[in-house]
Amino acid sequence: MLPQHEIQIRVRYQETDGQTRLHHANYINYFEIGRVELLRAAGHSYRSIEESGIFLVVAEVSCRYYLPADYDDLLTLRTTTVRAKGARIEHHYELFRDHEKLAEGRTVVGCVDREGRVRRLPDWLKGEHPE
Amino acid sequence: MLPQHEIQIRVRYQETDGQTRLHHANYINYFEIGRVELLRAAGHSYRSIEESGIFLVVAEVSCRYYLPADYDDLLTLRTTTVRAKGARIEHHYELFRDHEKLAEGRTVVGCVDREGRVRRLPDWLKGEHPE
Amino acid sequence: MLPQHEIQIRVRYQETDGQTRLHHANYINYFEIGRVELLRAAGHSYRSIEESGIFLVVAEVSCRYYLPADYDDLLTLRTTTVRAKGARIEHHYELFRDHEKLAEGRTVVGCVDREGRVRRLPDWLKGEHPE
Amino acid sequence: MLPQHEIQIRVRYQETDGQTRLHHANYINYFEIGRVELLRAAGHSYRSIEESGIFLVVAEVSCRYYLPADYDDLLTLRTTTVRAKGARIEHHYELFRDHEKLAEGRTVVGCVDREGRVRRLPDWLKGEHPE
Repeated sequence: MLPQHEIQIRVRYQETDGQTRLHHANYINYFEIGRVELLRAAGHSYRSIEESGIFLVVAEVSCRYYLPADYDDLLTLRTTTVRAKGARIEHHYELFRDHEKLAEGRTVVGCVDREGRVRRLPDWLKGEHPE
Repeated sequence: MLPQHEIQIRVRYQETDGQTRLHHANYINYFEIGRVELLRAAGHSYRSIEESGIFLVVAEVSCRYYLPADYDDLLTLRTTTVRAKGARIEHHYELFRDHEKLAEGRTVVGCVDREGRVRRLPDWLKGEHPE
Repeated sequence: MLPQHEIQIRVRYQETDGQTRLHHANYINYFEIGRVELLRAAGHSYRSIEESGIFLVVAEVSCRYYLPADYDDLLTLRTTTVRAKGARIEHHYELFRDHEKLAEGRTVVGCVDREGRVRRLPDWLKGEHPE
Repeated sequence: MLPQHEIQIRVRYQETDGQTRLHHANYINYFEIGRVELLRAAGHSYRSIEESGIFLVVAEVSCRYYLPADYDDLLTLRTTTVRAKGARIEHHYELFRDHEKLAEGRTVVGCVDREGRVRRLPDWLKGEHPE
């Protein structure tokens, strides 16, 4: 399975703000898309995971912004699984425009069941990062 | 019960776009807030309605934009129940900044149950508009 | 130039709502993406258009919702330029999942300059629809 | 001036996601509203600040999520200016439902001019936190 995956995202008009730049909260949405596409590249669908009764809920998020992204920029988001252990997966994100790094971030997601109880990660989800 | 209700909404920075104006899709979100607050003013909570197994799903929406709204503008949204009959409720919306009308819109919501089957409106929901 | 263009859009988790479906306001955002990509397919970039001092502002929007779209659905949006005349362009949108039509909509955008004054459409913008 | 300010925010339907909870990226939007309202309580309008040619851009953001927020919850957001020095302001955020703390976060915003050049904070902006 893949510990790292890259996708391209084009900045939507609706995602910019009054400074004509990608609004800072939307980076967090991009990170979510990155996680989902990393899963898909590894052969999993987050939708099917939820249908099976497992939910990944965000426990921590952080982002550092280095350079602004403009409307219509075609960005590259690199998502890396840093750690997948117990009930938690830690991802790292780097957002680029060509070779410029615009931002980087980190999330920790926890695994819960339909009732919100903490669950150990299934083995096939942990497999993303060979340790 | 109230056939009409007014609320105030302040334009959020995240809701503006690269033209430094309220993005046009966010008017549709404001209309939803208007419907919910009209219901609340009539003594109902949309959240409780969903918990009771009734869902209001949007079947039609339209909006005409006359003047732009800027970041931080304090707007007045007037929501009117135009018709509530069978399984459908029609609302009309007018958005003002002071005495200027910025936009007006219309939605039709349909009443369905948890499985998505069309349901007649409960009497207390129809009651919003005395006909 | 192209009077019609199709793109694919995958429903993002953040775009769903408490009914686990694509929130109705996000269809309006999808329409905007459809307009922009139709322009791009015709050799224009909306970003460059704005940089040249021409802004397309939304004057009217409407949408009819037939069937819900779920998280992670890969949808097809067909955007058609219905009319481009004077200072206005009218587009029509159809959103599909496979062969099911989920929704259709319409927008009218108006052409203004940096000061918000109405401007006739440049010829190359009108060209999208041979009349 | 006020080093701390509390506001109430009601969770909008559009802000929830397929887990019927406030989507995690929207906390970041709430923090922005908290900063703006803290400024307003101190007698400043962020809109006027931008009109004067000073822009506050987000350099860092982080959030820890403890408990989910549901649709229609009426939340309390407490925003505290932790530090305002040089060209940067650091805020801390705590989000509550009644007496339960749902999340806490932190942002660092930097002061730039219209051309994006770093600027020292004006004295009246620094004044929020007496040191």
